[in-house]
Amino acid sequence: MQEQLWGFDMFLMDIAYNGEHYHGWQVQPNLPTVQGTLCAALEKLLLQPVMISGCSRTDAGVHARQFICRLETEKPIGIPMDRFLKAANHLLPNDIVIKSIDICPEGFHPRFDVKYKEYCYEIRDGMVFDPFLRGLIWQLPYRLDADLMQTAAECLVGKHDFSAFCAADACEDRVRTIYSLSVKRVDDRVIVSVAGDGFLYNMVRIIVGTLVDVSTGRFSKNDVSEMLDSADRTRSGRTAPPDGLYLNRVVY
Amino acid sequence: MQEQLWGFDMFLMDIAYNGEHYHGWQVQPNLPTVQGTLCAALEKLLLQPVMISGCSRTDAGVHARQFICRLETEKPIGIPMDRFLKAANHLLPNDIVIKSIDICPEGFHPRFDVKYKEYCYEIRDGMVFDPFLRGLIWQLPYRLDADLMQTAAECLVGKHDFSAFCAADACEDRVRTIYSLSVKRVDDRVIVSVAGDGFLYNMVRIIVGTLVDVSTGRFSKNDVSEMLDSADRTRSGRTAPPDGLYLNRVVY
Repeated sequence: MQEQLWGFDMFLMDIAYNGEHYHGWQVQPNLPTVQGTLCAALEKLLLQPVMISGCSRTDAGVHARQFICRLETEKPIGIPMDRFLKAANHLLPNDIVIKSIDICPEGFHPRFDVKYKEYCYEIRDGMVFDPFLRGLIWQLPYRLDADLMQTAAECLVGKHDFSAFCAADACEDRVRTIYSLSVKRVDDRVIVSVAGDGFLYNMVRIIVGTLVDVSTGRFSKNDVSEMLDSADRTRSGRTAPPDGLYLNRVVY
Repeated sequence: MQEQLWGFDMFLMDIAYNGEHYHGWQVQPNLPTVQGTLCAALEKLLLQPVMISGCSRTDAGVHARQFICRLETEKPIGIPMDRFLKAANHLLPNDIVIKSIDICPEGFHPRFDVKYKEYCYEIRDGMVFDPFLRGLIWQLPYRLDADLMQTAAECLVGKHDFSAFCAADACEDRVRTIYSLSVKRVDDRVIVSVAGDGFLYNMVRIIVGTLVDVSTGRFSKNDVSEMLDSADRTRSGRTAPPDGLYLNRVVY
């Protein structure tokens, strides 16, 4: 185990990050991104160019509790795993952490080989905002009805064209399968968990925004099923802010 | 209750804030501060100049779970309490929250009338950093000995000259009384709680840094008592970062 990484040049890393201060995962010129920050830290550590491919593209402000990415180096690296983790995490800012690293199986791609992904959206509906959850949760100053939101969400489970629940500039093929969608209350939080084979641009955030609109009475639960059938984004609800969104799990 | 604020011009507010993005409590030119942000929001709400005096001066990056401040307005205000809270919190960024407001008793000063204050310093010593606690806790990559820290801390309780435990530019009179100081482990956290009649500049952070230095073996517990007697800042330990420090309670 100790010497596991020695002499290889392709690795899988399981990382977690607080996306509040990043313009999303993917490298963008002159903007702080998770991929860019990770690359810079690992190039400083390994003293060679590296390439990192992620399992997903998260938007600005979105978080990840599990995010799998592949690290490719030009030359084999010669650092034992525990020392790699310690040194790399020391070089990273404390809102990005590498939880583990292992050798990458041949031919494995962290994005194309995903079976399903699980996102979690967290809302806090206490009357007084919690300042220590800034950037980490969507805080609403009115009480939500989690049971009603759950009922309204049920029609979204299954294989559907999710055109009504994605941003205008999402990709062409808008058919996705949602395996499960649950809305649960835990004290003053409402947690929306959704697992699916893939998610369109802003899809989880528009679903959550629409369910909140159901709770406030703007839409009925039947409206949600009609929105889905209409494939018309103008009929669905608002886009929830990125703060509450977590990529929770990636399954291969 | 509903109309409680009507016609008065001097109020006490209990607020909480996440200090990560602020240069401390006190107004400074061209820098975001909690006092400045609060002033701006309330002047926007009340459409008149306001003056705000706080119970303490917290440094850049330090947090408050309870912070009492006095609000003075030029003209009496005419908003019921619940509407004031809702509107003011709506105008504030979500890392500052007003928890309550009431009429200020005559002659009361939030700073000079303090009986004692309680600070809490939170350290996390899990091996893998938690990216969602960025700015909210001091994360150390090695295990601390909370019992040893507690033993070393005991000599600090009581009335002492704390010159060895304050920044060089602290005020002249450096005698303070610490009523209690406890170091407790809760899972992967070590919580240092300290109550006293007043605290010098950086005092809690230097105490905590020194106790961590005792845990790592840099100092013995006897060294701490010698430091205190020496009244010499160069003999005590490092200054813990602001991230883990919370003003927890103010008692009048």
